[in-house]
Amino acid sequence: MNTFGNIYRLTSFGESHGPGIGGVIDGCPAGIELDTAFIQSELNRRKPGQSKITTPRKEDDEVQFLSGIYEGKTTGTPIGFIIWNKNQHSADYDNMKNVYRPSHADYTYQTKYGIRDPRGGGRSSARETIARCVAGAIAKLVLRQKGIRIQAFTSQVGNIKLNGSYTDYDLDKAEDTAVRCPDPATAEKMEALIAEVKSKGDTIGGVITCVAQGVPIGLGEPVFGKLHAALGHAMLTINAVKGFEYGDGFEAALYRGSERNDRFFNDNGHINTHTNHSGGIQGGISNGQDIYFRVAFKSVATILMEQETVNTEGEDTILKARGRHDPCVLPRAVPIVESMAAMTLLDFLLMQKIRN
Amino acid sequence: MNTFGNIYRLTSFGESHGPGIGGVIDGCPAGIELDTAFIQSELNRRKPGQSKITTPRKEDDEVQFLSGIYEGKTTGTPIGFIIWNKNQHSADYDNMKNVYRPSHADYTYQTKYGIRDPRGGGRSSARETIARCVAGAIAKLVLRQKGIRIQAFTSQVGNIKLNGSYTDYDLDKAEDTAVRCPDPATAEKMEALIAEVKSKGDTIGGVITCVAQGVPIGLGEPVFGKLHAALGHAMLTINAVKGFEYGDGFEAALYRGSERNDRFFNDNGHINTHTNHSGGIQGGISNGQDIYFRVAFKSVATILMEQETVNTEGEDTILKARGRHDPCVLPRAVPIVESMAAMTLLDFLLMQKIRN
Amino acid sequence: MNTFGNIYRLTSFGESHGPGIGGVIDGCPAGIELDTAFIQSELNRRKPGQSKITTPRKEDDEVQFLSGIYEGKTTGTPIGFIIWNKNQHSADYDNMKNVYRPSHADYTYQTKYGIRDPRGGGRSSARETIARCVAGAIAKLVLRQKGIRIQAFTSQVGNIKLNGSYTDYDLDKAEDTAVRCPDPATAEKMEALIAEVKSKGDTIGGVITCVAQGVPIGLGEPVFGKLHAALGHAMLTINAVKGFEYGDGFEAALYRGSERNDRFFNDNGHINTHTNHSGGIQGGISNGQDIYFRVAFKSVATILMEQETVNTEGEDTILKARGRHDPCVLPRAVPIVESMAAMTLLDFLLMQKIRN
Amino acid sequence: MNTFGNIYRLTSFGESHGPGIGGVIDGCPAGIELDTAFIQSELNRRKPGQSKITTPRKEDDEVQFLSGIYEGKTTGTPIGFIIWNKNQHSADYDNMKNVYRPSHADYTYQTKYGIRDPRGGGRSSARETIARCVAGAIAKLVLRQKGIRIQAFTSQVGNIKLNGSYTDYDLDKAEDTAVRCPDPATAEKMEALIAEVKSKGDTIGGVITCVAQGVPIGLGEPVFGKLHAALGHAMLTINAVKGFEYGDGFEAALYRGSERNDRFFNDNGHINTHTNHSGGIQGGISNGQDIYFRVAFKSVATILMEQETVNTEGEDTILKARGRHDPCVLPRAVPIVESMAAMTLLDFLLMQKIRN
Repeated sequence: MNTFGNIYRLTSFGESHGPGIGGVIDGCPAGIELDTAFIQSELNRRKPGQSKITTPRKEDDEVQFLSGIYEGKTTGTPIGFIIWNKNQHSADYDNMKNVYRPSHADYTYQTKYGIRDPRGGGRSSARETIARCVAGAIAKLVLRQKGIRIQAFTSQVGNIKLNGSYTDYDLDKAEDTAVRCPDPATAEKMEALIAEVKSKGDTIGGVITCVAQGVPIGLGEPVFGKLHAALGHAMLTINAVKGFEYGDGFEAALYRGSERNDRFFNDNGHINTHTNHSGGIQGGISNGQDIYFRVAFKSVATILMEQETVNTEGEDTILKARGRHDPCVLPRAVPIVESMAAMTLLDFLLMQKIRN
Repeated sequence: MNTFGNIYRLTSFGESHGPGIGGVIDGCPAGIELDTAFIQSELNRRKPGQSKITTPRKEDDEVQFLSGIYEGKTTGTPIGFIIWNKNQHSADYDNMKNVYRPSHADYTYQTKYGIRDPRGGGRSSARETIARCVAGAIAKLVLRQKGIRIQAFTSQVGNIKLNGSYTDYDLDKAEDTAVRCPDPATAEKMEALIAEVKSKGDTIGGVITCVAQGVPIGLGEPVFGKLHAALGHAMLTINAVKGFEYGDGFEAALYRGSERNDRFFNDNGHINTHTNHSGGIQGGISNGQDIYFRVAFKSVATILMEQETVNTEGEDTILKARGRHDPCVLPRAVPIVESMAAMTLLDFLLMQKIRN
Repeated sequence: MNTFGNIYRLTSFGESHGPGIGGVIDGCPAGIELDTAFIQSELNRRKPGQSKITTPRKEDDEVQFLSGIYEGKTTGTPIGFIIWNKNQHSADYDNMKNVYRPSHADYTYQTKYGIRDPRGGGRSSARETIARCVAGAIAKLVLRQKGIRIQAFTSQVGNIKLNGSYTDYDLDKAEDTAVRCPDPATAEKMEALIAEVKSKGDTIGGVITCVAQGVPIGLGEPVFGKLHAALGHAMLTINAVKGFEYGDGFEAALYRGSERNDRFFNDNGHINTHTNHSGGIQGGISNGQDIYFRVAFKSVATILMEQETVNTEGEDTILKARGRHDPCVLPRAVPIVESMAAMTLLDFLLMQKIRN
Repeated sequence: MNTFGNIYRLTSFGESHGPGIGGVIDGCPAGIELDTAFIQSELNRRKPGQSKITTPRKEDDEVQFLSGIYEGKTTGTPIGFIIWNKNQHSADYDNMKNVYRPSHADYTYQTKYGIRDPRGGGRSSARETIARCVAGAIAKLVLRQKGIRIQAFTSQVGNIKLNGSYTDYDLDKAEDTAVRCPDPATAEKMEALIAEVKSKGDTIGGVITCVAQGVPIGLGEPVFGKLHAALGHAMLTINAVKGFEYGDGFEAALYRGSERNDRFFNDNGHINTHTNHSGGIQGGISNGQDIYFRVAFKSVATILMEQETVNTEGEDTILKARGRHDPCVLPRAVPIVESMAAMTLLDFLLMQKIRN
């Protein structure tokens, strides 16, 4: 249950304040040139404290590879890796040992396992996602060779929404803004909102949109291995995610078949569709069009305001978190969404090799 | 990939117009009294042609059990079953052999496998969900013994939405209306809309809400086996589903941590929360509150109107489907949503037995 | 746990005296011409009552395919199938309802599940292997296209052993003898021994040798998916099997590295080995040489002699089975061994497609 | 494929001369007191150079735990661990870079993956088994709490065999001899043979017998998850293993049902059997008797004698390995056999919790 994927598989381990976070990648194709600079740049993208709008926590997350690589190339054997934790002996979390933080996993972990590591949320900390970024970065390297490109961006923060479709924007510009929104004007508004929220010690949610281009026709394993079901599962494993939709998504409920069927036509000798309401997937199988989907994030539970809660004895108490917090997880979550999408698509790409 | 679940597992088979649809249920606990009347009643709930608003196709779907049962009880060995198809030699679909229907899976199946069964969509037909209802009905029988109850209902059809929260309604009343909406007034509007859509040979989408009550604390297997990720995956495997959200869902993007954290309190000796924005799951593990989620369905692709498309040679052509169609899949999908939820929850309930 | 394989997967169901035995084959490549005459001939090979030396029970085992086939070819969707039981209401086994037969699974099933189907051993009956023969026959059809051939034969019955190596015999001749031994003289002795054992109502064990030729280099997934480990697992799932060895097997314990290392040489431009003590597998990966292994069967537990045992109340009693029995399962087990080998090799062949 | 187990799962990584060997243990029950001294003592048991009869290579194998433990107890989250390699930059293996060693995995790895780590066999090195001993030691700690005990010993080296049954010996004495044979006289002969073999730079095979006592009735998941099939699979994944048999094993082929059926009797109110030819498993399910099995090891392929072989260009050449070698792997393999048995039994013990 700490393993993700069928063929390209990540098994991850590690707690927020233990020795480190790491994992084992099994099923990676052999002979892939491991571009460590790229992998590190991906880790840097999810690092907190990248700008004034995010958490100031310093994390020098450097990945150490432990196996599966020879002379800079993957060998087809499992790739072990670790990112060592820097501040594992922090006393900052001592006051959380005996309290169940609202909307955190303290209470459910304690009840499920009868024991939990209370330091920084232990296994339930979002720091766990570092391992995903390593496996996702390697997946991207493989996908890139196949002409598949994945790009995510922040499309909503609180009530500030990016208008229109992803096709209206130059997605490469998303990285130019701190909030990772491809429209500078909207990004500015989002950043202002985050700053305001931060000043109050509060947090705010949002939506990330992700687009995969160049995906060949045929990925997906019906009926229980539909491609979008796997993508949805992947996204819903990310901390704070509350919803997933692809193609027209929830809006599809409003429309009629006559309005939203994607009609085929002969496009200079190739089969193409006039529209892409389907989001690039039909019957659970990719159809060669862009795959796009949206992921809803709630506001992060850690706020710097007093909250009523109970302690581990079940007694009413007041919690006041100290020091630092992340007012909006969206910018940092962008590379995580991309990583999960990359792992999923690579997994299905490898599975499809079996079919033909 | 035609297998669903980890411990309680359904492997399904069958095409729309082949001999039948069936499956194998593995991992069902032994000694369960098999209430065949209940199972049949669940199959009847998904049967088309139940009322004037749905498809008039007659399907006498009767399940035949082939193994795993002795003297009316499950034995712990695999339960094989089949529902025979009545009209497998229908010529109705002959005209679809050489055409790719818009927003159907004809084109992607053909490209993926190099061959497809064109009769009624073959494996991609929604008729496949019968097998899920059988496995779901048995899962419900087991869950019922544990005090777990699952109820789904139609909460939106086109732009007609049920207002407020599920807690505002008596969910048992959903079955009293043809559209399976617990509010008679809203149901009437939904049914009127469906009738109008049907008269035009068109189709319309909607949303189903599902609630699971009595789920014990502790179900869910972090980090990649989070309970809501499994529920999302389960729902997204249902034909025509475009989105999934749980708890506050996409709306969560709008709010702040201070507004939406579920604060704990001592509730006469028990730990409880004032609100349930989390949707009964925290850190991927059930917390004992109601689990609720929403599933978005697009309008069904089969419409009785002329549509531009291409044939299997890639040439532009006009498709005009004949005879009968289902203007709104929502009412029939209600038991399917429940079935997938029941299988998922039973699977996690059994997994949790390992933990303690 | 009633599913075998990773990519080419058989999920089987059925009891000895229930409605039938069947299964679902998932992951079969699409476009395979389904040679039903061949599949039926494979089923006939395992049928009891083929000759005077085997059980006289009449079983007209005819397979009915339920899905996954269109116009005689596989479509890549799951292949459901069933073999109906003819004598499911037999009263012959009524006296076994309240007794635990020695060295049968009655007692362990009852204790594990708290319930069991006592008719003919229920799920633990060797009749379950019919489903394996169907899936194995289809696997053989696919492997044949790739030039892979699997042949098993009886190499030992009681103390009658076939001398020398499999390379000393024309394996095609095995099917000419009732006992399925390629050497007529040895076959005659084996058959005489079986006749003698049968006349006493007793049973006898033996060994089946299996050879796979034409297996390409590279099949096997180290470290826990070694090819021979998967073959061993496959064989040990067959009823009455007590041991598995490949290459030199247990005899390898006696020899020195200098005596048994398979030395490489340049064989007219190809890498070859002088010997094949390794049995065609090195480091868990096929090396292009013949794969050969041996499977030990104990004598079948059902004998027509009085035996002390206990009833389901735990009281001492005497059991006397009636009517008919199989004095030696080896001849019938030959196609089952081949089927399990075929499924395993196809599974690894498909997995290897991912790697290159 | 580098993952072992279903519920209690080890995913391992690492090469002989990379940074280290490690793994992730998922599914370990929470709240287990981690006896690190015991775990280290188990690692020491497999360490080479323990006595004059084994390889003089010095390996200070110390395990570092990376996650899943809080205040000395398991938390139910994945346990990451690593054993750092000491001599990862050894030049000793440089001469093997361009040669395929006879009966090693060099050639098959190179052909399968198109690339390999040639240093010390890379991933195919037996050093990989360290990870198994860590996971096995933890499994033993859990099993011990349930009263289950696993003991393996060397029962054959070359033609020196331990006579009689395991019940004739005090198995605790196995650890008193360098060769790990419970009979001092036989151990002496085995050690003399190994010394002689070693003096020639040669290697020798043997057999390890393993006994599991205190296993409750009911472990095993028919039909493809039979307990002995899982044990056989586990053993066959160990380097150099060529065969597996349980209960009567290959000898069972010689006997009749009337001679070898295990007859039940009422043993002072409990159901018991007079004999245990079945090896503690019937129908794939444990029956409460001792489980015992035998594992055949070939002689290790690395010998210090000249051998004909080919280089990576396929040209004939002579290989002369230098320095050090392990004349007989049996003593070191004893804890590995125990570890694989412990992991398998714990896995099935946890699975059985689901059933009742």
